[in-house]
Amino acid sequence: MARKEAKRSSAKKPRWALKIHRAPLAPERYPWLPALEGVTLATGIAGIRHRDRPDVLLVSLPANTRAAGVFTRSKTASAPVEWCRRQLRGGRARALIVNSGNANAFTGRAGVDAVREVAKATAAAVGALASEVFVASTGVIGEPLPVGKIIGILGRLARDGSDGAWPAAARAIMTTDTYPKVATAVATVDGHRVRINGIAKGSGMIAPDMATLLSFVFTDANIVAPVLQRLLREAAEPSFNSITVDSDTSTSDTLLLFATGSAQHQPVRRASDLRLADFRAKLNAVLLDLAQQVVRDGEGAQKLITVEVTGATSAKSARSVALSIANSPLVKTAIAGGDANWGRVVMAIGKAGEPADRDKLAIRFGDQLVAEKGARGGRYDEAAATRAVSGREVNIAVDLGLGKGRARIYTCDLTEGYIRINGSYRS
Amino acid sequence: MARKEAKRSSAKKPRWALKIHRAPLAPERYPWLPALEGVTLATGIAGIRHRDRPDVLLVSLPANTRAAGVFTRSKTASAPVEWCRRQLRGGRARALIVNSGNANAFTGRAGVDAVREVAKATAAAVGALASEVFVASTGVIGEPLPVGKIIGILGRLARDGSDGAWPAAARAIMTTDTYPKVATAVATVDGHRVRINGIAKGSGMIAPDMATLLSFVFTDANIVAPVLQRLLREAAEPSFNSITVDSDTSTSDTLLLFATGSAQHQPVRRASDLRLADFRAKLNAVLLDLAQQVVRDGEGAQKLITVEVTGATSAKSARSVALSIANSPLVKTAIAGGDANWGRVVMAIGKAGEPADRDKLAIRFGDQLVAEKGARGGRYDEAAATRAVSGREVNIAVDLGLGKGRARIYTCDLTEGYIRINGSYRS
Repeated sequence: MARKEAKRSSAKKPRWALKIHRAPLAPERYPWLPALEGVTLATGIAGIRHRDRPDVLLVSLPANTRAAGVFTRSKTASAPVEWCRRQLRGGRARALIVNSGNANAFTGRAGVDAVREVAKATAAAVGALASEVFVASTGVIGEPLPVGKIIGILGRLARDGSDGAWPAAARAIMTTDTYPKVATAVATVDGHRVRINGIAKGSGMIAPDMATLLSFVFTDANIVAPVLQRLLREAAEPSFNSITVDSDTSTSDTLLLFATGSAQHQPVRRASDLRLADFRAKLNAVLLDLAQQVVRDGEGAQKLITVEVTGATSAKSARSVALSIANSPLVKTAIAGGDANWGRVVMAIGKAGEPADRDKLAIRFGDQLVAEKGARGGRYDEAAATRAVSGREVNIAVDLGLGKGRARIYTCDLTEGYIRINGSYRS
Repeated sequence: MARKEAKRSSAKKPRWALKIHRAPLAPERYPWLPALEGVTLATGIAGIRHRDRPDVLLVSLPANTRAAGVFTRSKTASAPVEWCRRQLRGGRARALIVNSGNANAFTGRAGVDAVREVAKATAAAVGALASEVFVASTGVIGEPLPVGKIIGILGRLARDGSDGAWPAAARAIMTTDTYPKVATAVATVDGHRVRINGIAKGSGMIAPDMATLLSFVFTDANIVAPVLQRLLREAAEPSFNSITVDSDTSTSDTLLLFATGSAQHQPVRRASDLRLADFRAKLNAVLLDLAQQVVRDGEGAQKLITVEVTGATSAKSARSVALSIANSPLVKTAIAGGDANWGRVVMAIGKAGEPADRDKLAIRFGDQLVAEKGARGGRYDEAAATRAVSGREVNIAVDLGLGKGRARIYTCDLTEGYIRINGSYRS
């Protein structure tokens, strides 16, 4: 599976490896992810929930790999999330072990023990300390994690790792996802090329059972842990923290960034280091790409909706209004039905509780001004407005006309498919 | 239509006037609402949106009627809401004029003028001041209100009023409702009987276009306006402010309480007056009854869900957690599917952001303890838990185990019917 990046003529134009058609908004092509020196990936079938699909991913990382993480804000976070938060204090990583099929969430004391057992066994298999092992689980909650099944295949996974198994890795962590999610970029640090590879799973923000958001990003850049943490936190805001499928938040959401340091540039030790400019931009792009892939795979999603709010009294206020619109079932069902129902956008602005003046706000669907000055837009054209909400990608722009605060949120429409998927999952 | 309350043998057991089957959760019977001295109701067809259904309600009130009101908290409140808020300062009412089919919301300056015109014409028709006329509108937003159509039938409505047209009144204010909503009670004040009649419309909290919540309550009690206002505000909390269909809030939500003062007891001038005890209880009961009827008519609703949170650090915190559960699309779709998916309740508790300890909380579906001590309940019985979420009424109880705060919220499940209704309404 391994292919050498060096053989490629242009690293900036990734080759396209496969072409599939799944969810209506699924990407038509996937980029090819280059190898990262010392990073090997292996997937296997532990039979945690299904007997016939890969459900465990082991990523082995070279010595001196630094780690950073951003996690769910849930007050009922899962045992693996608590484990990762604790290990991050060391800032070092040698392995990542992920299973799908069981979230090991709300499993009490046994769940905490299960994480430790898996971490210890993984550490032994790759020759590292348990404190250098990061653990993530996604799937059903409240069921005991079958630790033995995972541990039973670790030896083989540690032996069989490949530096090119990125697509397989993205596939092994899927639950209700209809397609694997990968993204890659090349950045320049100090004149040297560094690579950023990311994988993600998630089919909603949502749900402790099958649609947790997990994302793992790997780079060969040489950046100290505190700076890496800061870069990740900043990049998570406009990407993973700006998407919503149904306003529900998983107990297991985990975003980890690993930097092996094998690139040739001198180490970066300060977040203000000017050499980080391109890396920062590319990291943001990879995370935004992955985050949008998650929204596009939102349960039942037929349309990608971008909500842009400007003119708010602050960025925080803009974000709150944008989320109110993006999470409104009435806005989302209207878009699903191709209905240019801007009245529901007015409603969603109003219910956000943020500063808003009915007579100053303007609403656009695509490039159609549908509402302004406290009433329907003067040149309102129902047919044009309907066209603007009828495609696969819909843009809703709101200018509150009060200040300079702005925010952008990505979401999807709310369809009968969402109800079908979520009304019958466990049965 | 008018029937005299005096003829009835027991005012405490309302007679049932009609029996219908509409939404699955529709009440099987309706109470008969007694006449209130001096209160006459008339409905008519103005043809605002449909040509064949009553869409205007005029209620004439006797001199000295006091008014109280509670309104939407939306920052984009409609022109009629702003009008009512202003007239409440006087505390007096002589008429209520309501139209369905058009919400007169987000109609700019023209909307403000429209309210004034309607109020003036109504005042002229009933012989009162415009400042004593309360106005409410529900229906499509952003469309100019056809004032002429309403004014055109006012003269006839003022002449044709009847003291028994309560069911017709409840029907005239409907939009997407599948059944009219009425409730009544008799209270004792100072040894004298007083009556409380209420009507409501709403099929969601929700939506500025067709599912606004309107409720109008009438009593012959003799209570001064400031006390009436306080009673209404208190009664609205555990009723209309404790229901949610889809977390969306209308720009037009209006709850008005009118007290004619024709009952025989001495006026009540203080909220602390002990004579109010029974009236307070009965007012609360009428509002809760109407609020639950709204939830039962929630768009697509197949099940009434009661979420009870106890053991929170405060009542406010309990309410926030209960709303997080009641508004969670994943919880609501699980209940729709008869899936005892308590993991989603854990998730919804966690995302509320309120104090919660995974290892201290307990979750019950009906009388089944499904989760406790950070894991699945020790005696968890999947079949029994499934039965508990399979009926028309589902109770979810959460004890956070932290303090004494408690709250109860009513909601309904989220079904494909909701999507169908809201994805195609305007087209």
